[in-house]
Amino acid sequence: MEDNEGLNFDKNSGLIPVVVQDYITGEVLMLAYMNKESYELTLKTGYMHFFSRKRNKIWKKGETSGNIQEVVSLYYDCDGDTILAKVKQKGPACHTGNKTCFFNEIIKKENLVGFEILKDLMVVINKRKN
Amino acid sequence: MEDNEGLNFDKNSGLIPVVVQDYITGEVLMLAYMNKESYELTLKTGYMHFFSRKRNKIWKKGETSGNIQEVVSLYYDCDGDTILAKVKQKGPACHTGNKTCFFNEIIKKENLVGFEILKDLMVVINKRKN
Repeated sequence: MEDNEGLNFDKNSGLIPVVVQDYITGEVLMLAYMNKESYELTLKTGYMHFFSRKRNKIWKKGETSGNIQEVVSLYYDCDGDTILAKVKQKGPACHTGNKTCFFNEIIKKENLVGFEILKDLMVVINKRKN
Repeated sequence: MEDNEGLNFDKNSGLIPVVVQDYITGEVLMLAYMNKESYELTLKTGYMHFFSRKRNKIWKKGETSGNIQEVVSLYYDCDGDTILAKVKQKGPACHTGNKTCFFNEIIKKENLVGFEILKDLMVVINKRKN
């Protein structure tokens, strides 16, 4: 369960980019970086911990805002240099108050006909279930 | 439409990590890097282009495999150092033949009750539509 043999922390100065995805809606919430210590803290506690390149220290996501991320599942990619985390997000993921950090549109070629449509449905289903 | 004022290519030696997501299923397919030139090629052609850190050159995703990625929409994040791309993926995204590069499970706490369930449904709907 804590096997990280396939993960390569050396490729990018000890840091691995982590894509964080809402496990209910599939929405990509943010990208942040983990060093080995924050990765191990994440496994140990079940809550997302990252390494801040700016502040040069480990932080627990939501430690001040309360907008914590509970780990549902973690994956690493084919060459072991990126992590994908599916999480239960409390509140908005972004420090701006937006649900996701990716709210700046560069281009949008067409109206999405994919999973976007079902996102709201999943939220309703999950709310009624609880 | 080609406004990239908010994007900061200087933060990570001229490279920006790009999260690539299937626009139909919401699945995160891969993470790769863009320099300014590959970003501009992506905007110009409508197909994903990246910068290979290993080969130190620009590549069009699928140029040899045929598994190209057509851009549906592009976003950048709150601090302008990451891109999210929603794409029409042709074939598998991963060079291993897997649909997504994130096929290595580290932990999975519970059966997902979120968008995973609806992924297959969206594939069926989209197939019937075409």
